[in-house]
Amino acid sequence: MSIHAPEYVRKIAPYQAGKPIGELAREYGLDEASIVKLASNENPLGMPESARRAMMAAMDELGRYPDSNGFDLKAEIARRYAVPQDWITLGNGSNDILEIAAHALLQPGESAVYAQYSFVVYALATQAVGARAIVVPARDFGHDLDAMRAAIEPDTRVVFIANPNNPTGTFAPAQAIEAFLASVPPDVVVVLDEAYNEYLDPGLRFDSTQWVRRFPNLILSRTLSKAYGLAGLRVGFALAQPELTGLMNRIRQPFNVNSLAQAAAIAALGDADFLERSYEINRQGKARLQTAFDALGLQYVPSYGNFVLVRVGDAAAVYERLLRAGVIVRPVAGYGLPEWLRVSIGLPEENERFLAALPAALGR
Amino acid sequence: MSIHAPEYVRKIAPYQAGKPIGELAREYGLDEASIVKLASNENPLGMPESARRAMMAAMDELGRYPDSNGFDLKAEIARRYAVPQDWITLGNGSNDILEIAAHALLQPGESAVYAQYSFVVYALATQAVGARAIVVPARDFGHDLDAMRAAIEPDTRVVFIANPNNPTGTFAPAQAIEAFLASVPPDVVVVLDEAYNEYLDPGLRFDSTQWVRRFPNLILSRTLSKAYGLAGLRVGFALAQPELTGLMNRIRQPFNVNSLAQAAAIAALGDADFLERSYEINRQGKARLQTAFDALGLQYVPSYGNFVLVRVGDAAAVYERLLRAGVIVRPVAGYGLPEWLRVSIGLPEENERFLAALPAALGR
Repeated sequence: MSIHAPEYVRKIAPYQAGKPIGELAREYGLDEASIVKLASNENPLGMPESARRAMMAAMDELGRYPDSNGFDLKAEIARRYAVPQDWITLGNGSNDILEIAAHALLQPGESAVYAQYSFVVYALATQAVGARAIVVPARDFGHDLDAMRAAIEPDTRVVFIANPNNPTGTFAPAQAIEAFLASVPPDVVVVLDEAYNEYLDPGLRFDSTQWVRRFPNLILSRTLSKAYGLAGLRVGFALAQPELTGLMNRIRQPFNVNSLAQAAAIAALGDADFLERSYEINRQGKARLQTAFDALGLQYVPSYGNFVLVRVGDAAAVYERLLRAGVIVRPVAGYGLPEWLRVSIGLPEENERFLAALPAALGR
Repeated sequence: MSIHAPEYVRKIAPYQAGKPIGELAREYGLDEASIVKLASNENPLGMPESARRAMMAAMDELGRYPDSNGFDLKAEIARRYAVPQDWITLGNGSNDILEIAAHALLQPGESAVYAQYSFVVYALATQAVGARAIVVPARDFGHDLDAMRAAIEPDTRVVFIANPNNPTGTFAPAQAIEAFLASVPPDVVVVLDEAYNEYLDPGLRFDSTQWVRRFPNLILSRTLSKAYGLAGLRVGFALAQPELTGLMNRIRQPFNVNSLAQAAAIAALGDADFLERSYEINRQGKARLQTAFDALGLQYVPSYGNFVLVRVGDAAAVYERLLRAGVIVRPVAGYGLPEWLRVSIGLPEENERFLAALPAALGR
């Protein structure tokens, strides 16, 4: 190696995305139309029609740079969540929000706390800035909040929490999160990643933006990539009080959210009907998958997201056999879960294709 | 301040983008259609029709995440520049490439070298990772390559060079760059930012990718935001040998380039006719502006880009008067050039609008 580079950069193992349909088709000689992808927790309904219309209207301006301040999109978010515009940071997906937060708050010699089996980007973002990771063992595949509170050290600057969590699908109820927030030292920032919030059943929903008002050390992260159906466009956002928002906007790339994503996001945020349909098809699909896993005698983690983590034994082999049957799911060996697969919830016919292929893939 | 954050993050002064048309319309009560924006070095032809067609074909897949490896786009770049695919890093605009390079190569306690009056993102990216900036005085508003070579210190990891440079429009000929590359220690990385390369006159063009083959410490940065007309979509790329490319892809966010940008970029890269029209309208507009500045007795820096840096005296006042006349140009006081404005080259009628408003704005 002739180039100088920080050791912590060299040691990063890049993110492994779900296998794209086109890639499987190329590698296995399959017809793309025959492939079912349940690997990336995408919305099986695709993009809402409202967002498509908004994009068409914005198409003529693509020779121009995006609005770096995202005026219209921030106005919509501000209205919807009842926060001032200077509490908002826009991200190129919430992945960008998570990396911005790490970059704005952490440096070598400091530490971040997150849970075992929680979203891998917390680990990647922490390592990318040369900070130390304090990984707190999971409890029942979810966050052990008491242990996470106890794990905070004097050099800890950030705690990452996913609620619901990906890839396990676990959920910590509002009062547990609130008690955690109240217990954390005020100079330690909590990044509360609610990428899957919209899939919660009505009885579990709560207004987490009230915590942003109460806790100046809270960053709430949301995405348009899941229930809003805009994964391919890349848009997410953070809500936080002005001091934190100001720090994040110092790190944010000025044109991080493209023009079409801004236009589409405004439409999608206002599309209550699409959101309800996304919730409902997910609720039904989740029940179908979990019932089928029960019938097959497979252990799974009851899910609060748009995917189910299921134990299949030799997951690498089962994954490979599913690929050959034209079904892409997600291996999670990188999370230390080599016996498990994460299966995104698809359209009814996609779920059935997966369930039809599963017994043979399990070797039954 | 109750939140811990690195001092170097707190000290960042965020990038000031060109004022968007919508913002000027809101603030000054103007009709958007009457406003001429010559502030962001955008392509006045807008997006190519070929790119629009490619986007329409990709629209149905936006519920899916982008291909994180950018297979098809990398294949097109690899073919066009005759490099292997593992020499390519995709960026959310070339801004992302510049920040990725800084992040992958620099840490606190190390330094980067760049020229006075060179693109501000070099300063921002250096500060965002807590590295030290070594700013080398410009010569005739351009890079003093000998002085930059001499300024390299033992802790220098990166040298940024813009060719042509923004905001001054200067250009260093191929043999000067090549001699510089040959003189730099092999463990110091040169980031050669060629965002404006496609505006060079045919006699000045050269195949800079051959330098990538020769110098393992070179990162060549290109963008689709200028001559290719895709600023609103966000796509750029870097070419470098595998060691450097591997480091950059460790820092790159996995879904940094959205699906439509990937599709549009493939089309735009192949659209030789659009590129030629972009070059030609720029060549004519540049001659028109420079001739008019001569006639007005205004000093300007002869430009190799799609903009002209012109000395107007009290630039803040002239900028403000132009705004009131519905013409947006770019102040460059932040570069230490308070008497100058940067004017992007527009359509003929846009250039004439600007030139018609200029004498009054100058107070003549």
